Amino acid sequence: MADPLVDSALIDQITRRVVARLREEQAGPPANGKLVPVNVSVRHVHLCQEHVEILYGPGFTLEERNELYQPGQFASKQVLTLVGPRMRCLGEVRVLGPLRKSTQVEVSKTDAIYLGIDPPVKPSGEHEGSAGLILVGPVGVVHLQRGVILANRHIHLSAQSAQKWGIADNQIVKVRIATHKKTVFEDAQCRVHPSFLDEMHLDTDDGNACGLRGGEKAEVID
Amino acid sequence: MADPLVDSALIDQITRRVVARLREEQAGPPANGKLVPVNVSVRHVHLCQEHVEILYGPGFTLEERNELYQPGQFASKQVLTLVGPRMRCLGEVRVLGPLRKSTQVEVSKTDAIYLGIDPPVKPSGEHEGSAGLILVGPVGVVHLQRGVILANRHIHLSAQSAQKWGIADNQIVKVRIATHKKTVFEDAQCRVHPSFLDEMHLDTDDGNACGLRGGEKAEVID
Repeated sequence: MADPLVDSALIDQITRRVVARLREEQAGPPANGKLVPVNVSVRHVHLCQEHVEILYGPGFTLEERNELYQPGQFASKQVLTLVGPRMRCLGEVRVLGPLRKSTQVEVSKTDAIYLGIDPPVKPSGEHEGSAGLILVGPVGVVHLQRGVILANRHIHLSAQSAQKWGIADNQIVKVRIATHKKTVFEDAQCRVHPSFLDEMHLDTDDGNACGLRGGEKAEVID
Repeated sequence: MADPLVDSALIDQITRRVVARLREEQAGPPANGKLVPVNVSVRHVHLCQEHVEILYGPGFTLEERNELYQPGQFASKQVLTLVGPRMRCLGEVRVLGPLRKSTQVEVSKTDAIYLGIDPPVKPSGEHEGSAGLILVGPVGVVHLQRGVILANRHIHLSAQSAQKWGIADNQIVKVRIATHKKTVFEDAQCRVHPSFLDEMHLDTDDGNACGLRGGEKAEVID
């Protein structure tokens, strides 16, 4: 016959396991969660008109290869080579369009260590204290004095989502990515603009740290 | 004379700000926090006796260059070159000692993408489903069929800290690193052993994602 003490312990254990499983399920992304697609930005370059002409020749115009997810942005057919102060290089670095007022190079910290530079984490367009680098194109070379940054963690938000979720332009939020290497990225900057589609951008360090493979969503948790 | 309504609103605002500031201060790492030094493991190789002799010659013994933080572990003077299926290579990869029963190569996801392999995230020593790679030494070459992994996030814990904090061997915890790129790494495995010193190990993707520069501490938060 069954020992009542053992039965009680068993029931207790089963109850605790069921409760734990139910809690786990509840802990998943809620149906109403603030979810945005998350994509990785591999190292790339934005060029100004002057530098396009130095690198690719007078009067040269970037040729569109494919559109990017954010309306109006595109990957061009043009690539260039980055050379750092240790004379190490990274080749086939994609140039994105359209042109910018100032040239900006976005690399990961891993790239920066390899190249031998120490750029700060900055929002796009903020070049105060940024690093330099040599850009080599098929026609000419630019000794860039500043404009190399580690792009900050940021989220492009449509005006609609921003309003629905009560998030203001430039607000800093925490984001959780529930991959096989679950990670919470704090310090993520929200950028709200009517032309934006909801999309989080991570550099390759952040993207590889949480093991993104494509198609994941980030959840704004705070 | 002061408007009593304005005064009341002012007092209310000041009170809310003081409370918010106090909460902020309380939210910092508590004096009693579960803090462990965090270090980055750059790509490296552990070799078995058979592979040492193939790569460096019959009867060869690893030469110690410097001790590592964990007692008994050392970086050897030996390096080798990793070659992937795309014929891309990573050179000067450090061999760590002492010898292991099976050869194990630990790379980051960034390294793996570059080399063209897709190793799983695994605890050290678990090679089921791991990837292969070509190891090139000064004397010979090993066509490694398995043993290449992305090392999981893990914490070496002294028996003392484990007991004090109520953490069991192999327990999975969340860890927060409060750098300029604040990040919470979930899925961190605790390894408890009397010979261990408290130390979290991250690969270069995780380490660069949270912008480690050296000397930081990780806080076990859950």
